[in-house]
Amino acid sequence: MSPSTLKLSLLFFFFFFFFHIALLSHAFSHPLDPLAPPEITTVQTIVTSYISSSSTNEKVHFHYVGLDEPDKPTINSWLSSSTTSSSNLPPRQAFVIIRIGKQTRELEVDISNHSVVSNKLYNGNGSPTITSEEIDKSNDLPFKYPPFIASIEKRGLKLEEVVCGSCTIGWFGEKETSNRIVNVNCYYMDGTVNIYMRPIGGVVVMVDLDQMKVTGLRDRAIIPVPKAEGTDYRQEKEAAEEGEGRFRSSLEEKVTMQQDHPNFLLDGHLVRWENWEFHLAFDMRAGPIISLASIFDPEQDSYRRVLYKGFLSEMFVPYMDLTYEWYSRSFFDSGEYGGGLCTVPLQPLTDCPANAMFMDGYFPNQDGLPVKTPNVFCVFERDGQDILWRHTETGIPKRLITEVRKEKTLVVRTVLTLSNYDYIIDWEFKTTGVIKITVGATGLLEMRGTEYTHVDQIKEDVYGTLLAENSIGANHDHFLSFYLDLDIDGEANSFVKTKLETKRVNGNWSKRKSYWTPVSQTANTESEARIRVGSGDTQLVFINPNKKTKIGNNIGYRLYPGSNVGHLMSDDDYPQIRGDFSKYNVWVTPFNKSEIWAGGLYADRSHGDDTLAVWTERDREIKDKDIVLWYTLGFHHVPCQEDFPVMPTLNGVFELRPYNFFEHNPVLNAKNEL
Amino acid sequence: MSPSTLKLSLLFFFFFFFFHIALLSHAFSHPLDPLAPPEITTVQTIVTSYISSSSTNEKVHFHYVGLDEPDKPTINSWLSSSTTSSSNLPPRQAFVIIRIGKQTRELEVDISNHSVVSNKLYNGNGSPTITSEEIDKSNDLPFKYPPFIASIEKRGLKLEEVVCGSCTIGWFGEKETSNRIVNVNCYYMDGTVNIYMRPIGGVVVMVDLDQMKVTGLRDRAIIPVPKAEGTDYRQEKEAAEEGEGRFRSSLEEKVTMQQDHPNFLLDGHLVRWENWEFHLAFDMRAGPIISLASIFDPEQDSYRRVLYKGFLSEMFVPYMDLTYEWYSRSFFDSGEYGGGLCTVPLQPLTDCPANAMFMDGYFPNQDGLPVKTPNVFCVFERDGQDILWRHTETGIPKRLITEVRKEKTLVVRTVLTLSNYDYIIDWEFKTTGVIKITVGATGLLEMRGTEYTHVDQIKEDVYGTLLAENSIGANHDHFLSFYLDLDIDGEANSFVKTKLETKRVNGNWSKRKSYWTPVSQTANTESEARIRVGSGDTQLVFINPNKKTKIGNNIGYRLYPGSNVGHLMSDDDYPQIRGDFSKYNVWVTPFNKSEIWAGGLYADRSHGDDTLAVWTERDREIKDKDIVLWYTLGFHHVPCQEDFPVMPTLNGVFELRPYNFFEHNPVLNAKNEL
Repeated sequence: MSPSTLKLSLLFFFFFFFFHIALLSHAFSHPLDPLAPPEITTVQTIVTSYISSSSTNEKVHFHYVGLDEPDKPTINSWLSSSTTSSSNLPPRQAFVIIRIGKQTRELEVDISNHSVVSNKLYNGNGSPTITSEEIDKSNDLPFKYPPFIASIEKRGLKLEEVVCGSCTIGWFGEKETSNRIVNVNCYYMDGTVNIYMRPIGGVVVMVDLDQMKVTGLRDRAIIPVPKAEGTDYRQEKEAAEEGEGRFRSSLEEKVTMQQDHPNFLLDGHLVRWENWEFHLAFDMRAGPIISLASIFDPEQDSYRRVLYKGFLSEMFVPYMDLTYEWYSRSFFDSGEYGGGLCTVPLQPLTDCPANAMFMDGYFPNQDGLPVKTPNVFCVFERDGQDILWRHTETGIPKRLITEVRKEKTLVVRTVLTLSNYDYIIDWEFKTTGVIKITVGATGLLEMRGTEYTHVDQIKEDVYGTLLAENSIGANHDHFLSFYLDLDIDGEANSFVKTKLETKRVNGNWSKRKSYWTPVSQTANTESEARIRVGSGDTQLVFINPNKKTKIGNNIGYRLYPGSNVGHLMSDDDYPQIRGDFSKYNVWVTPFNKSEIWAGGLYADRSHGDDTLAVWTERDREIKDKDIVLWYTLGFHHVPCQEDFPVMPTLNGVFELRPYNFFEHNPVLNAKNEL
Repeated sequence: MSPSTLKLSLLFFFFFFFFHIALLSHAFSHPLDPLAPPEITTVQTIVTSYISSSSTNEKVHFHYVGLDEPDKPTINSWLSSSTTSSSNLPPRQAFVIIRIGKQTRELEVDISNHSVVSNKLYNGNGSPTITSEEIDKSNDLPFKYPPFIASIEKRGLKLEEVVCGSCTIGWFGEKETSNRIVNVNCYYMDGTVNIYMRPIGGVVVMVDLDQMKVTGLRDRAIIPVPKAEGTDYRQEKEAAEEGEGRFRSSLEEKVTMQQDHPNFLLDGHLVRWENWEFHLAFDMRAGPIISLASIFDPEQDSYRRVLYKGFLSEMFVPYMDLTYEWYSRSFFDSGEYGGGLCTVPLQPLTDCPANAMFMDGYFPNQDGLPVKTPNVFCVFERDGQDILWRHTETGIPKRLITEVRKEKTLVVRTVLTLSNYDYIIDWEFKTTGVIKITVGATGLLEMRGTEYTHVDQIKEDVYGTLLAENSIGANHDHFLSFYLDLDIDGEANSFVKTKLETKRVNGNWSKRKSYWTPVSQTANTESEARIRVGSGDTQLVFINPNKKTKIGNNIGYRLYPGSNVGHLMSDDDYPQIRGDFSKYNVWVTPFNKSEIWAGGLYADRSHGDDTLAVWTERDREIKDKDIVLWYTLGFHHVPCQEDFPVMPTLNGVFELRPYNFFEHNPVLNAKNEL
């Protein structure tokens, strides 16, 4: 570090220190808190200063800046410290990915002592998450590119009604993939804001993101642009007709009224509700991160850990459309576009109910300076009018006993909007100990223009469903990989598969001829833990092999898959190679700090060489170890007309439920609040 | 009919007429309305009069009395009549099953003209649903049977703390099964009301229901009775300590307040809410029956039929415990005990929210006279804080568009309590056209007493999980068969299975090597429609082959199975033979008025010769016909300690969703009510 840099650093240290204290003053701080805006600014200062001190004159682009979490022993030691407070926080460090001079670099930055701890050139395949600025700029380039303007004119379209969107192009066996190329596809407004219903087919513009210039255009066919009629989804026109503002005023009134009485506590990033406690953080790639989820056990008079860390690791969305502008669409939404970057501000009273509390999220822009997504999460108590448990006892003569307990749950909601699609991610905590994850898929389909106006005209495979005249909704999949570092009552866990096996009754000692009985097998290594879920004849339980209930059952949590699907592409197909985590719904790995992103850290144009599927080839031991469950939630989507022009939400769910974790029903003593 | 009977009939005709008019005056009448109390009384009069006119002096016991529905053409003609009103109701008829002189008889009774239309002796296997009076009396018999009293004394138990419950005994290949026998098993209170946690093991009393006397006792072993400690689930003790009535007062206040403003209309048995209309009736065997469910389509300016009739046809609950008192427990809850007979009154504010409206149910007692189950259904609008659809558009430069619509749904809830188990049956209607059926399993496990107090002592298959000292929760299944007479936009429907097939890309024209495409097959006959659902790679759609959307897609509804399981018992095992509808999750049959109960009309001690599995052996044509979907929802239950002493609700779900039924998203124009 040069003397001038040191001086600058000191200046920034004091600058940052002031802001940090200011931040701390209003909330409890936790070592897993995401980087606060002053910390992001500090990281930017440290890195730009560090880079400018080297020889290069190139501009630094920040592609990722996030908390470099302290390791588990540090966190656990901090948690068990009798003086757990902001004053003894472990050093704050950031993990940073930058692009400079067409190179990708990984830096570890120590925020607390203002230094770059490490600086590594990345030489592998794939590129980091695309920045929002790159997307905006690449979307704008076609409008300055004469051949594109000519293509639009040739189609008789008005250029001012055209908008463009950039698509990652994947990898199809090319040796050289260091160029960061996107395909820019364009859409037509002219009477609608539902741009995805009006694709301008047959023409695509290639853009190099590092050079930020057009590298080519292919205009292969003029395909009819579907009509605007019936595609708009906005209420505002109607509202204007009926009297503007009719909804808004009552909205705000209710928000104010009910937010005064939350049923849960937000203490900085810690959430406490009923018997649950967890930490909620925002990350520009993962979006919401739930950490240290623990449930209070009155019999042990303590919180017991269930989940050390959980988040959406990757979203793989391959389309099944082989036409030229479509075959490459096999998106890795989290890795290519950034799950957190794609979060959108939640709307009070519609995205979240009146009793919700909101949190903001912060991430760096391309220049490294903090940007805010307001209301990135909401947290609310849900009274879904369900029954927690009940019984009516009619079997005791002359008595009628009815006991019913209502269910309330706590929901943490986030919405990720990946261009057309909106994913509603709900983490739901139940007093019974259940953690339920629901992914709601809504938003707009990606449509392909076509000559066809009626199904009877179609004699070929059109890779989708005709949803309106000239509009095909393309067949596609969604595979979401959830990283779930379970710590079932402690770090060392095992994964037990229990098959319900039919047994024949031998001899005549019973009138029955068969029954089923559970036969359990503990998975020793990763290969024994890869499962495609189908029917529920196999139970999947994560146990703590070192702890038992008083009467001797293994303490555990059971994975309840909902309806789910598996991959259908060939093993040797390039998108499948890159997204091979879709091959199984269940994977279990030993905890490894570097294994976080199921599709690889550098997902854009990746070759699939740094993925969950590859890591597990080592077939490591997973018995009685700190293990991670990776759950792939899949959807096959063959669109139907009800999905046009906006899709009703379709939910995918799975749950983690206590399974001999407690000595008995933990909500036996629940009371109804009426 | 003798002259004296005729005179009596006329008298009763006037008597009934008066009551019927009184009934009609307070609500709209519909030909599918369940029998009203005066109608039940009239049936009782007609039948007892008819029977007494014959030579027998035996007492008549009524085992089933229900509406004998007019056939579809009559209903449709009434519906389309311009004068649809109570005045032109089709004749009211009842179907009646009685026992008299140890014989089962089926009668058709014409209520409108006071006559017995047919009277048939039933000579087949199996017996009708057991009456509540028979259960009460058989439960009481052991207390007057000295050998049982001796067995209780031998165990050192107090007789006054003992309660007993009757269990059907099934069929295990015996040739003679006309005797209506139950096994009476007993439980110990003495400090708890949770009787099922305190089984008195090793002793069972056999009772003949027709003779209503004990036919035997087997006391094979003294098994420890599990402790009462920790088993009670009542709040009342606590409430008494903290001040009685603390909850009640606020309860009633809220009910009054919110029931004044229902968001839906109950017009007699017709329910209208948003775009849905359906008829809701109570039947003593089926419980809730949903009929004529139709959804309004603004584009066609009319209601379009989805479901002609839907109800829970049978519940099969086989236990996997081969011990003497347990092997025969393979209950057909609907057929043996009566699904409707086992409904319980719903509790305002806990079973159903404050905005719920309630309906009562009526059924005959053993003597044929009407009995009321108050609050047997509740209907309420649910705001589950979910999102109907949303989109945030970030792709149009300089604009940010966010549109979100909240979801509200309508729920019809019923609770069936089969001794220990409570089933929450929710029929949920969504504005999107979705019909969602949720079965929540809660209540109490059936427990078996055991010597074991710790898992480490167990070296044999104990057919369950040790849940507390001396208490084993036995492994078991639940299979619920739903009868769903779909009429997708008309009666003639077909069942289309669409498999998503992987296709290889031949040649080098695409860089992709594979994709999937839907390949559809219409099921021609019943055998082609039997499906065990597993992964979601096969789509199951019911279409109207005679109607298409404007652009030519088949109008349809898709079955979305949730997580589900299949049977595991051997095909030749007796309980499996009787409950073979559990073999597949999906069955489709041509509509046949006599095929209603998946486990047979006479389920008690049935031989499995009148079941869904047998009917479909004819392999009838189901293409372009009025067809019925039978959906089997299964659970395997390996109990865990969290299920003790009362089980948190575990849900099973499935949905019917419009699939090219509408021209576009039917809730595009939905508005938020804030």
